[in-house]
Amino acid sequence: MQINGTEYRSVWFEQGRLKMIDQNLLPFEFGIKEFSSYMEVAAAIREMTVRGAPAIGAAGAYGIALAALCSPDEKFRTYLRNAREELLSTRPTAIDLSNGVNYVYESTIKFIPDFPHARQVAVLAAQEYAHKSEMDCLELGIVGSALIQDGFRILTHCNAGALATVDHGTALSVIRQAHKQGKNIFVYVDETRPRFQGARLTAFELQQEGIPHAIITDSAAGFYFWKKEIDIVITGADRICLNGDIANKIGTYEKAVLAQVHKVPFYVAAPKSTFDLTCAKGEDIPIEIRDEDEIKRFNGNWLANPSSAALNPAFDITPESLITGIITSSGIFAAKEAAQRV
Amino acid sequence: MQINGTEYRSVWFEQGRLKMIDQNLLPFEFGIKEFSSYMEVAAAIREMTVRGAPAIGAAGAYGIALAALCSPDEKFRTYLRNAREELLSTRPTAIDLSNGVNYVYESTIKFIPDFPHARQVAVLAAQEYAHKSEMDCLELGIVGSALIQDGFRILTHCNAGALATVDHGTALSVIRQAHKQGKNIFVYVDETRPRFQGARLTAFELQQEGIPHAIITDSAAGFYFWKKEIDIVITGADRICLNGDIANKIGTYEKAVLAQVHKVPFYVAAPKSTFDLTCAKGEDIPIEIRDEDEIKRFNGNWLANPSSAALNPAFDITPESLITGIITSSGIFAAKEAAQRV
Repeated sequence: MQINGTEYRSVWFEQGRLKMIDQNLLPFEFGIKEFSSYMEVAAAIREMTVRGAPAIGAAGAYGIALAALCSPDEKFRTYLRNAREELLSTRPTAIDLSNGVNYVYESTIKFIPDFPHARQVAVLAAQEYAHKSEMDCLELGIVGSALIQDGFRILTHCNAGALATVDHGTALSVIRQAHKQGKNIFVYVDETRPRFQGARLTAFELQQEGIPHAIITDSAAGFYFWKKEIDIVITGADRICLNGDIANKIGTYEKAVLAQVHKVPFYVAAPKSTFDLTCAKGEDIPIEIRDEDEIKRFNGNWLANPSSAALNPAFDITPESLITGIITSSGIFAAKEAAQRV
Repeated sequence: MQINGTEYRSVWFEQGRLKMIDQNLLPFEFGIKEFSSYMEVAAAIREMTVRGAPAIGAAGAYGIALAALCSPDEKFRTYLRNAREELLSTRPTAIDLSNGVNYVYESTIKFIPDFPHARQVAVLAAQEYAHKSEMDCLELGIVGSALIQDGFRILTHCNAGALATVDHGTALSVIRQAHKQGKNIFVYVDETRPRFQGARLTAFELQQEGIPHAIITDSAAGFYFWKKEIDIVITGADRICLNGDIANKIGTYEKAVLAQVHKVPFYVAAPKSTFDLTCAKGEDIPIEIRDEDEIKRFNGNWLANPSSAALNPAFDITPESLITGIITSSGIFAAKEAAQRV
């Protein structure tokens, strides 16, 4: 992605260290954080320095690579196992995390006790995972752009952008490609409470790309559906089940219900790492409940009555019956067939 | 309403001045503002020192009374006409404002040129209007409480509380009465972006009353519908049309759609001043578009990408087909019959 004229990825490996754009600072400040241990990477995933299912998958993959680089030979297997457990415990909903972590872990431990090669493989496997994820996102954008007609007004929720992936994005990869093709488009950006990933990150990415857009409160989408001013909805996903149900950022389900009621197509864009072939249906996906403080305060300032409780589910489930199709790098599939066909 | 053990109304008249609880400060600070001219009252309505359809109706009524008290005899009619125009221009959607303003205006000008009596009548008419509005809200709460069963989990949007009315509230009047009757209830409080009237004001009122509740982001209601953890939705209204369509705070429409899809009853609670017998249907209601800054900043702090635009419709329309019933002091009516029956 271009940020103020320079090309960036959201996460990348450089001289033995993992680097990430600090997504908690954006768009008010731009900063890069460096990580040299898996513990630091786990903390960064928990604190959402990096967020977005494909991006945390890559961060987890690199976290295992850092563990391999840091581990003493004599404790290599235990150290890597602990790193895997710690990284997987950070966030429960996005399946990309375990796909990234497990891919590098499995690739690496095969080389024990050849520790120098195991370390080399760990880094290469993480880089391969990230590169593949980036390619997947670029390709699904090209595939999905066929859905976008000139003049379309698109609704998206949360940030399914380059920042949420290694690069390009999922929903925003589709939108970027449509824009590159010269189609006139307009994007309604749900602000996405409580952490404002839409208002902060999606709006920032669209502004950097010069794509016309406006931020709306999450509750205002219904008004624009009612006015018939939304032609298509595209979101990302944190996990896609065998039956086509998905988990995505809290609020996605409401937009899917509204889209169906208003006969507006609702698409999910996702790389292959977001499919969970062991998960039968949406009810089986663990939903992360985050701290109520995310709702009640922002940057230390109170937004809500301090002595009231708040409930903060970070994701919700959208059943396959509400999904018009899933956009992948292999094609656009009906939700219930997508897991079999990607 | 009780606030920290003392009994308050949201707006009241005392020693020739209008007093209001400053709703922009709550719940972080508690302050009372005093007004001695209609221009100050108009500014307070615009800036949302007072908000909520029935409360701004009473504020508008008192605004005309202040105009009558301030006006010189020789310009009385012009002064009152200007006051009426200025007050009516402050906010376009809530019909209570014009009901309150016009009631006092019409009552007063009949006495011209008997200016001492006209002034006396202006104050009495405003007080009568406010008192009637307060009674109406108390009564509709008693009527509506019959809908609330023991154990109900209630969703409400925005603040339809004592603060939004002279006292008691609309949706919260129903909830207060159910609580007083000893029913175990739990209230999901939509935070209500962009101005957080739910998270700030509704949560504060429920906490003051000791009613169990939790704040949720506006987008999270769908998740709790999906989990079958919402038994009834009750909101207020800013205007009710002849055909039963209503305008209410942005986001209400989305909750009504979700309620219907999940077969959860959706009720609107409103005093008689919220009915507009000149408005045929929802499409005819003017929707106030407020400043984008309300979305992008809170108390001076940026929440969103500063150089992106934002769209800030303050209300949306919920069609009568999504409304199970309208709770009034005269009874609970089907939406399409309510305007004829109140």
